[in-house]
Amino acid sequence: MADAIRLSRSASGVSTPNPPVGAVVLDPAGDVAGRGATEAPGGRHAEVVALDEAGERARGGTLLVTLEPCDHQGRTGPCTSRALAAGIARVVYAVRDPNPLAAGGSETLRRAGVDVARADDDEVTAAEQGPLRAWLHRQRSGRPYVTWKYAATLDGRVAAADGTSRWITGPESRRHVHGRRQEIDVIVVGSGTRAADDPSLTARSDDGSPTRRQPLRAVMGLTDVPRDASVRGTDGRFRHLATRDPAEALALLGDVQHVLVEGGPRLAGAFLAAGLVDEVEAYLAPIVLGAGRSAVEEAGVDTLGGAHGFEVRETTTMGHDVYLRMTPRTA
Amino acid sequence: MADAIRLSRSASGVSTPNPPVGAVVLDPAGDVAGRGATEAPGGRHAEVVALDEAGERARGGTLLVTLEPCDHQGRTGPCTSRALAAGIARVVYAVRDPNPLAAGGSETLRRAGVDVARADDDEVTAAEQGPLRAWLHRQRSGRPYVTWKYAATLDGRVAAADGTSRWITGPESRRHVHGRRQEIDVIVVGSGTRAADDPSLTARSDDGSPTRRQPLRAVMGLTDVPRDASVRGTDGRFRHLATRDPAEALALLGDVQHVLVEGGPRLAGAFLAAGLVDEVEAYLAPIVLGAGRSAVEEAGVDTLGGAHGFEVRETTTMGHDVYLRMTPRTA
Repeated sequence: MADAIRLSRSASGVSTPNPPVGAVVLDPAGDVAGRGATEAPGGRHAEVVALDEAGERARGGTLLVTLEPCDHQGRTGPCTSRALAAGIARVVYAVRDPNPLAAGGSETLRRAGVDVARADDDEVTAAEQGPLRAWLHRQRSGRPYVTWKYAATLDGRVAAADGTSRWITGPESRRHVHGRRQEIDVIVVGSGTRAADDPSLTARSDDGSPTRRQPLRAVMGLTDVPRDASVRGTDGRFRHLATRDPAEALALLGDVQHVLVEGGPRLAGAFLAAGLVDEVEAYLAPIVLGAGRSAVEEAGVDTLGGAHGFEVRETTTMGHDVYLRMTPRTA
Repeated sequence: MADAIRLSRSASGVSTPNPPVGAVVLDPAGDVAGRGATEAPGGRHAEVVALDEAGERARGGTLLVTLEPCDHQGRTGPCTSRALAAGIARVVYAVRDPNPLAAGGSETLRRAGVDVARADDDEVTAAEQGPLRAWLHRQRSGRPYVTWKYAATLDGRVAAADGTSRWITGPESRRHVHGRRQEIDVIVVGSGTRAADDPSLTARSDDGSPTRRQPLRAVMGLTDVPRDASVRGTDGRFRHLATRDPAEALALLGDVQHVLVEGGPRLAGAFLAAGLVDEVEAYLAPIVLGAGRSAVEEAGVDTLGGAHGFEVRETTTMGHDVYLRMTPRTA
């Protein structure tokens, strides 16, 4: 499990101004089996690096790649042949190959029985896009991709006046949250939320049993995490990030790709104030409380013009609730 | 203009347990020209009452009716003939006539060149449905239909820490708000919002000029409204509702059909606590403030289980913003 959050050693470095061609191999269960970036001229293509790392786990799996796999001999042999030899069942790519010599990879793969899709097609799942997006983000920025998730009422409350907060959203939203928890590497809560809710932070199935893939569980803050805290679990996948600084917390996590910030209001405020939120997932319950804590506190904003702004990328109803996915607004 | 908010005298009373067949006539400009309910057996059908009240204003106008206009002689002559004689150009009805003797009205009207639509069809506008819905609501409940409208951030704030609140939402949302203001009879704000923002509460076009149809403007609360307050305007269409009780405020407004409650947080809380919100329109700006006033205060809820619950009926993006229309959840 630990290798799922280790950055491929063959990656071309964290400060590349233009992202390299990147590839991720998912095994048939959807877990990351290999990652790679295209090496220096004459070296391996990204697909080959990722397939080499995945080995036999690639058989029946999915290859995610930023650029359509090449179909020409060149210096390295066609990537399409390597994908077929490795037994890849599905290929998802982001950009069609503009090189006429190398193009045609999709058609070659399709003729060989491989399911090929563009990353912006409707049938490509977030679970497929996520690992590639997070990995590329790390390549570009040198830090993990951070998703802030929250669930709130119409008036932005995350708890009632008496502190009750379970459950603000319905079962459909909670199922979606647990699905997302399986796709990310680390889930972070603040020590206040840890103390108030004693959450286990595990990804669970509908019947309450833990799913096979589990994120690392982290509590950020200077307060000690008690020995009997649920978040510690028994699998050793717990980290206490003893800092109040989001950037320092991310650095303490090391080479992880995708971090999910789950709460509470002050933790969310700290990540927003630090400019360290790359994606927002909002689960809005159509209820009103009129009192209780708001979803965000201390976000470093004094006046309306200084608000943190986002673009809505996705709007879906989930049972009674409304789900919004957003990314930061660029000026 | 004043007659647009007067209840038809021929209505069959406010305590009818089952809503009567109701009809509303809009003139070609979309203003209400007549309203009616079906009279006691032997008396006039709703359409005829409304058409009688509308007189010449019905020519080229729209007839909204709960039941498909009848097409048989019966005791009163077919309503289809009356609609055609009055020069009605469009008919919107809610329920098809289940009586085989009376059915076929739609076809008769269509053959005569009238545009006929069912109220739940996509092309029927809110402006057309609204007057009928509000009028029926008044018939059933004895009070106006109340829409609570608010604009807030992702964390439910309606103002920043320094009090700035213009504009939280974008121009597309504001245009929609001004469109809605033209469709309702009264717009109400609390005396706190009146003092803080000095709003004019007029319905305005894109160029800032007032539109032809204007709602009555009302301020609720015990505080006096200054002589130079913008809300007073110069057209005499202002009311001070000197009470803190929403039910009393509605009673003071008399025979109006549709009231829009626009803010602030405590006024919204009072209407919610009193169970006097029939519809919610939320304009959500995808921004985060982390401080400042929340959209609702003092809604009479202490614990999560006592929250005011709604069903989402409509979700639309408006520029950057997300618009939600909701109605109360029924247990």
